[in-house]
Amino acid sequence: MTSVAIIGASGMIGANLARTLIARGRLGRKSIDALILSDIRKSDIGGTDTQWVTGDAADFETINRVVASRPDVIFHVAATAMGQADSNFAIGYHINFDTVRTTVEAIRLSGDDYCPRLVHASSIGVYGAPFPALIYDASTPRPDSSYGTQKLMSEAIIADYSRMGFVDGICLRLPTIAVRPGEATHGNSGFFSNIIREPLEGRRALLPASDDVRHWLASPETAVAQLIHAANIEGRIPAYARALVMPGVPLTVEALLSALAERAGDDILSLIDRTDPPVYGPQNFPACFAAEAARKLGFPLLEEKASDFIDGFLRTHYPA
Amino acid sequence: MTSVAIIGASGMIGANLARTLIARGRLGRKSIDALILSDIRKSDIGGTDTQWVTGDAADFETINRVVASRPDVIFHVAATAMGQADSNFAIGYHINFDTVRTTVEAIRLSGDDYCPRLVHASSIGVYGAPFPALIYDASTPRPDSSYGTQKLMSEAIIADYSRMGFVDGICLRLPTIAVRPGEATHGNSGFFSNIIREPLEGRRALLPASDDVRHWLASPETAVAQLIHAANIEGRIPAYARALVMPGVPLTVEALLSALAERAGDDILSLIDRTDPPVYGPQNFPACFAAEAARKLGFPLLEEKASDFIDGFLRTHYPA
Repeated sequence: MTSVAIIGASGMIGANLARTLIARGRLGRKSIDALILSDIRKSDIGGTDTQWVTGDAADFETINRVVASRPDVIFHVAATAMGQADSNFAIGYHINFDTVRTTVEAIRLSGDDYCPRLVHASSIGVYGAPFPALIYDASTPRPDSSYGTQKLMSEAIIADYSRMGFVDGICLRLPTIAVRPGEATHGNSGFFSNIIREPLEGRRALLPASDDVRHWLASPETAVAQLIHAANIEGRIPAYARALVMPGVPLTVEALLSALAERAGDDILSLIDRTDPPVYGPQNFPACFAAEAARKLGFPLLEEKASDFIDGFLRTHYPA
Repeated sequence: MTSVAIIGASGMIGANLARTLIARGRLGRKSIDALILSDIRKSDIGGTDTQWVTGDAADFETINRVVASRPDVIFHVAATAMGQADSNFAIGYHINFDTVRTTVEAIRLSGDDYCPRLVHASSIGVYGAPFPALIYDASTPRPDSSYGTQKLMSEAIIADYSRMGFVDGICLRLPTIAVRPGEATHGNSGFFSNIIREPLEGRRALLPASDDVRHWLASPETAVAQLIHAANIEGRIPAYARALVMPGVPLTVEALLSALAERAGDDILSLIDRTDPPVYGPQNFPACFAAEAARKLGFPLLEEKASDFIDGFLRTHYPA
């Protein structure tokens, strides 16, 4: 028996995670006897036995209601994406950092030796340009975005609260997620999803990057599997593993477009509009990570090539 | 003409810095036409033309009074030491991080293209064990203390606000300061000062470390000279230099004790009480840093050997 809370349960990753846990009814070998979903607004996830806590996760009032029943595992996946964090500066710090700080502080203040596993969705966005061809676990993160800064600060405070024994935290530097469901997003790495999802749904997509841009991608299903794997690591998380780059697939724009044409025919590429000149080149994204520590700890990766991303999207959104 | 503010002006470094600026009346080649000193409590520093702002630097009200006159340079040297930050958890985050965040946010919100040089006293405490024999600028900081975590988070947020053009920040990872004036301090690296100052003033000192402990030290005068150098760097601070390890001297406990005996006679060593066994060994402190970027940028270091630290203390506190 285990109890689980998800902070940010209405977001893209949080909703995927919540639906997966509800469908399985288990976390690893343990059955889930309580599931608390929290977000600024309730979504349609969960049945009568799911408890919703709505409110701002940067407020102690909200988080205290999440923490009150002492969940064994807390997933913190509340975030605003890089585009918004950089364009709306104050909101970025509020959502991406203050909610994390409030969470660990509320846990600390709840006392009584309560020390839950805290699984946090960090990001490879903690790394900034200039990017080497391969980034090792020992490479120093130097964010070049507010989003990456907020994630790095969150990792630091979670590591400190973990060192002090208040939480047992682990931060997953998730790859860029593709194919994201929902609306086309603007700015930064959203186009990796747009150029697949939009044409497959018959809409035009804007491609602001050159063909040789390579980036580190994983599917929404992989992200959920990695978060669940982190929750199930036995014993206390070792100090070196408090922040880990997650396995992903290093894919070029060209490889994604080829796979798209292979699956849906060459004509589909006519739905893609390229900016001229490209806004982004290879220097704008980290291309490949060693992710050695995460691999050794058994973190899963459900894709290995470009067509897997397209097939995964079709399987999830257009089941036969 | 330039205007200067010091946040944390009653502290050990802040008071030294304030007295130096008042004595010189200049910062680099520019005469100081306004000096604002701020701290939770006023000290005896400054004359009739020095403006004091007393209050909590984590409150916008206080910082807005500091920022109101748009100082060209703001030194943020408010901090609580590693011992207190680790023993009084909430106060550590309040003093060592919240005051920094409030400062950069108050500057941002003041608007009107105001973008002061912000010189922040960070610390080599951002590095944690295990320590290699030599730590390079490219080495990844992994704090193993709350103090170090707070400094690392402060560096990250200052770099981000600088990238956005709200401030022109630079964080100096200062060496451990010896010989600190004042009272003997307990915990962590305070003994490097205690074993010199206390015997020279006829009191007993506790030495909790073995003779072969080596650490990275600089005098209070060097710290002030390094902060002033940072304020005087021409043009905008380059992105790679937003956080820099400062030059220091790698000294063993044995070297310090030998220099003490050389200056004050062998008998003075009888005033030193050793813990048995030693609490600290060489693995507990970073021993040596390359500090290459800071050296290239001309950051000063006023000592080179153990006896220089003792002579400097005697010169300052017992002038002929």
